[in-house]
Amino acid sequence: MELRGTIIEDTYAEAFDMWACRLIVTAVDGRWARAAAQEATGYGASIIGCDAEAGIDSVLDATQTPDRRAGVAMMFFTRSVDDLARAATNRVGQCVLTCPTTALFDGTPRDLLPTQTQRIPIGENISVFGDGFEQRAETHGRTCLRIPVMDGWFVVEASARAIPAVGGGQFLICAGDQARALQAACRAVDAIAHVPDAITPFPNGVVRSGSKVGAKTPNVGASTNESYCPPLREQVRSKLRDGVECVYEIVIDGLTRQAVEQAMRVGITAACGEGVTAITACDHGGRLGKIHLPLHKILKGKTDP
Amino acid sequence: MELRGTIIEDTYAEAFDMWACRLIVTAVDGRWARAAAQEATGYGASIIGCDAEAGIDSVLDATQTPDRRAGVAMMFFTRSVDDLARAATNRVGQCVLTCPTTALFDGTPRDLLPTQTQRIPIGENISVFGDGFEQRAETHGRTCLRIPVMDGWFVVEASARAIPAVGGGQFLICAGDQARALQAACRAVDAIAHVPDAITPFPNGVVRSGSKVGAKTPNVGASTNESYCPPLREQVRSKLRDGVECVYEIVIDGLTRQAVEQAMRVGITAACGEGVTAITACDHGGRLGKIHLPLHKILKGKTDP
Amino acid sequence: MELRGTIIEDTYAEAFDMWACRLIVTAVDGRWARAAAQEATGYGASIIGCDAEAGIDSVLDATQTPDRRAGVAMMFFTRSVDDLARAATNRVGQCVLTCPTTALFDGTPRDLLPTQTQRIPIGENISVFGDGFEQRAETHGRTCLRIPVMDGWFVVEASARAIPAVGGGQFLICAGDQARALQAACRAVDAIAHVPDAITPFPNGVVRSGSKVGAKTPNVGASTNESYCPPLREQVRSKLRDGVECVYEIVIDGLTRQAVEQAMRVGITAACGEGVTAITACDHGGRLGKIHLPLHKILKGKTDP
Amino acid sequence: MELRGTIIEDTYAEAFDMWACRLIVTAVDGRWARAAAQEATGYGASIIGCDAEAGIDSVLDATQTPDRRAGVAMMFFTRSVDDLARAATNRVGQCVLTCPTTALFDGTPRDLLPTQTQRIPIGENISVFGDGFEQRAETHGRTCLRIPVMDGWFVVEASARAIPAVGGGQFLICAGDQARALQAACRAVDAIAHVPDAITPFPNGVVRSGSKVGAKTPNVGASTNESYCPPLREQVRSKLRDGVECVYEIVIDGLTRQAVEQAMRVGITAACGEGVTAITACDHGGRLGKIHLPLHKILKGKTDP
Repeated sequence: MELRGTIIEDTYAEAFDMWACRLIVTAVDGRWARAAAQEATGYGASIIGCDAEAGIDSVLDATQTPDRRAGVAMMFFTRSVDDLARAATNRVGQCVLTCPTTALFDGTPRDLLPTQTQRIPIGENISVFGDGFEQRAETHGRTCLRIPVMDGWFVVEASARAIPAVGGGQFLICAGDQARALQAACRAVDAIAHVPDAITPFPNGVVRSGSKVGAKTPNVGASTNESYCPPLREQVRSKLRDGVECVYEIVIDGLTRQAVEQAMRVGITAACGEGVTAITACDHGGRLGKIHLPLHKILKGKTDP
Repeated sequence: MELRGTIIEDTYAEAFDMWACRLIVTAVDGRWARAAAQEATGYGASIIGCDAEAGIDSVLDATQTPDRRAGVAMMFFTRSVDDLARAATNRVGQCVLTCPTTALFDGTPRDLLPTQTQRIPIGENISVFGDGFEQRAETHGRTCLRIPVMDGWFVVEASARAIPAVGGGQFLICAGDQARALQAACRAVDAIAHVPDAITPFPNGVVRSGSKVGAKTPNVGASTNESYCPPLREQVRSKLRDGVECVYEIVIDGLTRQAVEQAMRVGITAACGEGVTAITACDHGGRLGKIHLPLHKILKGKTDP
Repeated sequence: MELRGTIIEDTYAEAFDMWACRLIVTAVDGRWARAAAQEATGYGASIIGCDAEAGIDSVLDATQTPDRRAGVAMMFFTRSVDDLARAATNRVGQCVLTCPTTALFDGTPRDLLPTQTQRIPIGENISVFGDGFEQRAETHGRTCLRIPVMDGWFVVEASARAIPAVGGGQFLICAGDQARALQAACRAVDAIAHVPDAITPFPNGVVRSGSKVGAKTPNVGASTNESYCPPLREQVRSKLRDGVECVYEIVIDGLTRQAVEQAMRVGITAACGEGVTAITACDHGGRLGKIHLPLHKILKGKTDP
Repeated sequence: MELRGTIIEDTYAEAFDMWACRLIVTAVDGRWARAAAQEATGYGASIIGCDAEAGIDSVLDATQTPDRRAGVAMMFFTRSVDDLARAATNRVGQCVLTCPTTALFDGTPRDLLPTQTQRIPIGENISVFGDGFEQRAETHGRTCLRIPVMDGWFVVEASARAIPAVGGGQFLICAGDQARALQAACRAVDAIAHVPDAITPFPNGVVRSGSKVGAKTPNVGASTNESYCPPLREQVRSKLRDGVECVYEIVIDGLTRQAVEQAMRVGITAACGEGVTAITACDHGGRLGKIHLPLHKILKGKTDP
């Protein structure tokens, strides 16, 4: 399969099950909502080393938030509900509770409430900070806690929903040089930014340290995937096509498989052309994830439910 | 003491000893250096709940970086050298190693090398990711490791310096309403941004959740400092002056006591006036830190060495 | 009428007829589309002194642009079609033609094509830069010109639509101090940013130099509106309520009266409360514009077609 | 001459005499100073079509501004003092006078006051807006005008200095593809951003529409320079080396010849390598400017006074 001169390999991304929550932070204006969201979703690139994979889903106007203020929707992904409760509570406690004028609400889209939905008591957990001065309040149609702080009350929804989600959507952009590979990656990330319910958790959305599961050293969970490293081409059994001198990976987490596939579709489409040799996906031999996301089917729009 | 109509209380901030490192991330252009630095210093507001307090010290031009590329200087603070090695290694591994075109170097200012300096082996630690394909290299006047990645080699200095530092510099801005308090806080943060070797680790540099050590609930390390919460004024023994309806805290970490004091000096000076009733500091009765930073002396420029 | 403690005066904004175009600039990624759009819409605050009032309407993803690349929609407003053709041509020629990888297309929303629509030959005008090497091309469903430049071809639609539009939508935010007034203004501008087909052309969307038509000095078109200046309260017949010490104006241009009214509605709604004394509009005694936009009716959603 | 594999052609940029002013805008915080500066320097790419070439020189902290507030230094360049007075007055009147909390001061560096310095009465010109309510004031060590506005008084220095300056510093980055050319251009612009007293007036600092003086059509001042357009390679006498498929130009204006040369030096140095074939400068046969800036001498640091 070929798109604007770029070969799309007939392979698939190995995605896997995760748990996710979508949280809305609001503030007195958009600048402060963004400040809180940026800090709360920072250092959230990969669960290999971070407590969660995190990112900003979208910027919200006053009609889209429970308290009719400017807001930002954040998303957090982990492997278990417990991990999610822990990471989300701590991130909200450190980066939202502390931030001027903010409030925090559950932001799970209404049409995404599967039967497996669970509740994580973020607000309840944080309310211990109130030291007995906190109050329970029904407000904005939600059960919230009001915690006294130095600029008034921090309003936080008592609990948020955790829903099953999909992590590890990904594709690789292979090009003849670094500049063209990176420009293609930027095109992909810009396109994915507009897809609802999907994030690219790495810095500016692009990864250059493709990894394999395990390493020669025991007890190391991940190490460089030498088959995709151009400098090692002569030393190893390389999976790089001739002429490929640089590869970037786009990693995607989504609330649903559909969101991840849509992100892969628009991202791959945007990346093709302009000196990009091939689009492929990292083959982990099934050791990473059980959800197969085949590139060709996704691009043709024929995907599994 | 009074400055532009604002009372400066005769009190002091309780700062404490920390360990810090200053790391320089470089990249193909300033945009990517910033992307890596922003992610690597995210979720780094307070060691109460984060593995480090982190922030961007300054943006560097090519003449200021070892590899003559655009760069950003990041700073990380923890309570012990071990914590620092762990946090810095993990943050660099997740957020810099992964980020297109970056390299990482020790960035401790040359004139700040006290006898207690220690080495944290960030590069050595991360090099396990190379899975045996990594190389040792003397380059840019440093001992570095070169780790193969999909866009070439990630160059990382083998070790970085950890130096004794000062955390918990702080002051409180007390005003008659939220808007004036926040505007004053923004003035302070903008001024502190230009002070070398000092950061304000919270979102956009401002804190609204002033805390006390401990809580009524056992085993809770910190809880709201009710004496500074305007909504609790009638219920508790408030430390707020009449008319104060909003308080923001500026928290500062610095590589030296001088840097923290300079940040407090320019921050307080910028915050005064425009409806700000008073500047004070949070009194923890000596339970927080042993370094006393007295506001009056600092403003007069008469401070201890 | 009152909203969250803020009085809404029973008055109206004097808006006036303008001509407008909406242009889409696309580029290799969103960063370059924004760079071009920001430069092209700069120095476009008021037609009192600028050749056009200009601003960014919205950021577009690849599905929303003719050439399926990242884009930004810009809007330009003038008093006549000739002025619009001149300003838009020159701004595109200086700030888009020159900018790496960009292309330019007409972006008038399809449902906004009144019978009075006119064509302004932006692309035709600019094509003289091609010095005979330019080409006509049917591409992306448009009649375009291709002008050779140093990074390839600049594709620009031969002509764009000019449509009748509405300028001078406005309201005044009156508060007891500068900080609360400015915070309310930021709330308003953030809310209006999400309204399609409307812009706030001044720096960050807020105006502090309210003007009246004419001046004591002959041949001066506009001068400070002393009745709204707090410092002149004692010297002139002030229109300020007791306690108002700061006023900010939000100025809105829109492709339709409906867009301007919607922007006023969400902007006023967001601005109210938090120490804002009153919302009003500047009364020019009918000397400015013939379109009356009554605040009360707009807030109630009962407005003229 | 060669640098990291890139050929530096033995040629020169044809720069020319301009007049310039450096103005400092201050505001309540850095955000508003930037908002005013960005608008005031917008639409200021080239005097071919704009009233001035304009850009931000640097962000200033409170110790660097007359009124001890956060600030930004802007620079404006024109061919004559009259044009400069007109453009600067109008830009300040439209984009600074109007912007919340700002003040405006002359910002010419003290060591750059040649004998030819002239005064442009920006503040005096704008003060007519005060309609008789303006006041003269000696403040911050300057002769200023205070103009009543809705958020208080706009303080503007009565006059600013116009000094002889240098425009048209430039160089061309020639590469084998668009992505590498643009990445090199970004490296150059990032490096130049740190050079004092020099700006790159085009969008994000990069130009792709290289022009020649005149055109086949009479009365057209500038048209595409076909000798540098890769798509026209076969049709014209091309000046492009074999394999060059994309060229970007960096244009620099500076308060002094030294500043322009320093900007060219760091910009060219940063651009070289990474697939850049050659650095050259546009030869206009002496029709553009009389100041010759030879690339080789500049890179060697041997330049005329």
